[in-house]
Amino acid sequence: MGGCDEPYRTIVLMHAGKMATLIVQKYGGTSVGSTDRILRVAERVMQTYKEGHRLVVVVSAMGGETDRLVHLAHDLSKRPALREMDMLLSTGEQVTAALLAIALEARDIPVRSFTGQQAGILTDDTHTHARIQSIAVQQLQETLATGIIPIVAGFQGTDAQSNITTLGRGGSDLTAVAIASALHADYCDIYTDVDGVYTADPNIVPAARKIIKISYEAMLEMASLGAKVLQSRSVEFAMKHRVPVRVRSSFHDEEGTWVTTEEPHMEREMVSAITSDKNQAKVTLIGVPDRHGIAARIFNAIAEEHLLVDMIIQNVGQGGLTDLSFTVSKTDALQAKEILMRFSQEMGIHHIEVTPDIAKVSIVGVGMRSHTGVAAKMFECLAGEGINIMMIATSEIKISCVIDAKYTELAVRVLHAGFGLSAEAETVSPQQAV
Amino acid sequence: MGGCDEPYRTIVLMHAGKMATLIVQKYGGTSVGSTDRILRVAERVMQTYKEGHRLVVVVSAMGGETDRLVHLAHDLSKRPALREMDMLLSTGEQVTAALLAIALEARDIPVRSFTGQQAGILTDDTHTHARIQSIAVQQLQETLATGIIPIVAGFQGTDAQSNITTLGRGGSDLTAVAIASALHADYCDIYTDVDGVYTADPNIVPAARKIIKISYEAMLEMASLGAKVLQSRSVEFAMKHRVPVRVRSSFHDEEGTWVTTEEPHMEREMVSAITSDKNQAKVTLIGVPDRHGIAARIFNAIAEEHLLVDMIIQNVGQGGLTDLSFTVSKTDALQAKEILMRFSQEMGIHHIEVTPDIAKVSIVGVGMRSHTGVAAKMFECLAGEGINIMMIATSEIKISCVIDAKYTELAVRVLHAGFGLSAEAETVSPQQAV
Repeated sequence: MGGCDEPYRTIVLMHAGKMATLIVQKYGGTSVGSTDRILRVAERVMQTYKEGHRLVVVVSAMGGETDRLVHLAHDLSKRPALREMDMLLSTGEQVTAALLAIALEARDIPVRSFTGQQAGILTDDTHTHARIQSIAVQQLQETLATGIIPIVAGFQGTDAQSNITTLGRGGSDLTAVAIASALHADYCDIYTDVDGVYTADPNIVPAARKIIKISYEAMLEMASLGAKVLQSRSVEFAMKHRVPVRVRSSFHDEEGTWVTTEEPHMEREMVSAITSDKNQAKVTLIGVPDRHGIAARIFNAIAEEHLLVDMIIQNVGQGGLTDLSFTVSKTDALQAKEILMRFSQEMGIHHIEVTPDIAKVSIVGVGMRSHTGVAAKMFECLAGEGINIMMIATSEIKISCVIDAKYTELAVRVLHAGFGLSAEAETVSPQQAV
Repeated sequence: MGGCDEPYRTIVLMHAGKMATLIVQKYGGTSVGSTDRILRVAERVMQTYKEGHRLVVVVSAMGGETDRLVHLAHDLSKRPALREMDMLLSTGEQVTAALLAIALEARDIPVRSFTGQQAGILTDDTHTHARIQSIAVQQLQETLATGIIPIVAGFQGTDAQSNITTLGRGGSDLTAVAIASALHADYCDIYTDVDGVYTADPNIVPAARKIIKISYEAMLEMASLGAKVLQSRSVEFAMKHRVPVRVRSSFHDEEGTWVTTEEPHMEREMVSAITSDKNQAKVTLIGVPDRHGIAARIFNAIAEEHLLVDMIIQNVGQGGLTDLSFTVSKTDALQAKEILMRFSQEMGIHHIEVTPDIAKVSIVGVGMRSHTGVAAKMFECLAGEGINIMMIATSEIKISCVIDAKYTELAVRVLHAGFGLSAEAETVSPQQAV
């Protein structure tokens, strides 16, 4: 494999300068879901520490804790104040950070827990969906310098007025990646309940294999296409700041998947993975007058209610009328229909139809950029099984097709085989991957 | 009653200057033990707000929550690191503050929750038993000035290095009193699950009556003698800073008990209340050589293990030997015995005896200062029922007797009647009380 010598040389130089590797480890909710599991995480942190690495640990709330708190809030208000939700939910991660610190101190490992604020994480003031603006790393750096492991409560920060904020879904991943970037860590390990990113969901495709290394771009597409391993925002952040990220299981020692910059040898694979997403519904407007500005009006009305539209297709019009279809998340479909019903008569739309039983099946791969005929091959695979394609969307590195939901698993399997993804995996050592 | 006009004049002046009363309300764990109860607290806050008062609310953790967190910590370590326990336990109050704020915002009452740090509570760094050093009131004052009610998480603060600290048992009372003092509040209402301070435990003495007004000094003695309504430290703080405190029930609207400065008319009552405490045990050393320095050695050894000794008596020696008895809390008695066993032989102590079935019965009242014969009357009452007194301790405003535990209730009842406490209560309006 090309370029292997380069990373090894770096490692040797680092040892010569007595600079231990700095790793950020992030443990998700299922990994810290009980005190037994927290003890297992403590063992893993201990092991990394005893191997001579410097590390920062970022934790999520214990599995179920955030839901418990949300329920309490909803007992009191249908629309809880967002600032107060942040005050409430941030306690979940704080509890885990304290508990993990307690477990490690009891094992004579020098640790100190940090709230988001104590870790210097400054965000904007968009409560429940705050964006990290900067990290004042002095506290963390001083702690590391004295040989102490900081255990940071993920998912949270404070705004300029010291109000507690939270970062939204998957926020702890973002905390970990942002800290890794701010501290110039060597890499960031995201520990979760799966052992890496797969070429397809192993529950659907038994022959699916773990991807050893994937580019930020492909991972980003996968995250937005329904692969739930990493949240889009943290991948985006890692990509922007070039933080090597590894996704691995907290339950065993397998290598996991490296998410990192695209390298020459990665281009060999035209398609990296197949994803599927059954969480969408199709809304079709039949007999829409083929007039300038109609589509804009429709999608403005939808956007005003904060519904997220994914794919859109418009048929070629006949006799001044056309059909328009779009997809939204299943939970939003009826609301979208209601919004459109309000002015369907005025606009002369004949009929609005909601199709909930659809699935989006996608192929993702940075290799597509330099290959032609990828789309044709995808359609061919699906057609070969008699699967009708309702909608198509493409980007530089992905192609998505909306199909009847009942064909989801069949489609994923046929594409997985068709693009040759069931072949043997290569193995890459962590040093090579970084 | 003398001096009634004075407070009324103050009230009138305040209205003329358009200064609304500033009240600090504190709600304990049982008062906020469920979302239903939090809603009831919200109603009460709303009512106070709509009456035109300015207020600051201080809350405890939901009943049971602190125990839940302590159990999690003890699953992970026998002796959890104290700094991390504070990080852990402080979340309990933060959750309640956020939930109460959510409930009030949903009812269009302008509120904002505060952690101890946000409220400016600076403590020393004695984790789990921190002392409040100062309160930077700027944030709270600005919040009040804009008509917003601050909801403060009790029991917590931060030290000079921004580590989270907690104030120990009853810490939320202390938070409330300290904030009332710092903001020069008119008074501090402590809402709890009892409706005031009684002349004796109503479960023991059905004729016990609620005390309308009690001095800080008497309340302080009662708190340390087993009356669990208010914690000693908060009474001490209130006394030092002259904060009028009212103890009342969050479950109904009764007036409660005012704890305030001693006033002339309060001296009429020789004895304010009878308390009892069954949580102690007596340790007796038989045949202690009556030598200089022996007692010091014994109590140094006990103190080194951080056991708190309450009462001590030493018999008059005979033949160079004496007996020595002291009381410690029941849970510490066996440890005290073990400590002493270690050097009993060396010191020539014949025998060490632990008597767990004892009770301390006390009479408390600032009026004792100016009355003679109070002790004699107490002993007479007990002797009249054939109750033997094992130990006696006195202060300016209390007399305690250790007796056989089986006589506890009888002793409390006979003293309650003997000192005329079952008489009709006077009623005092809040204005008069302040």
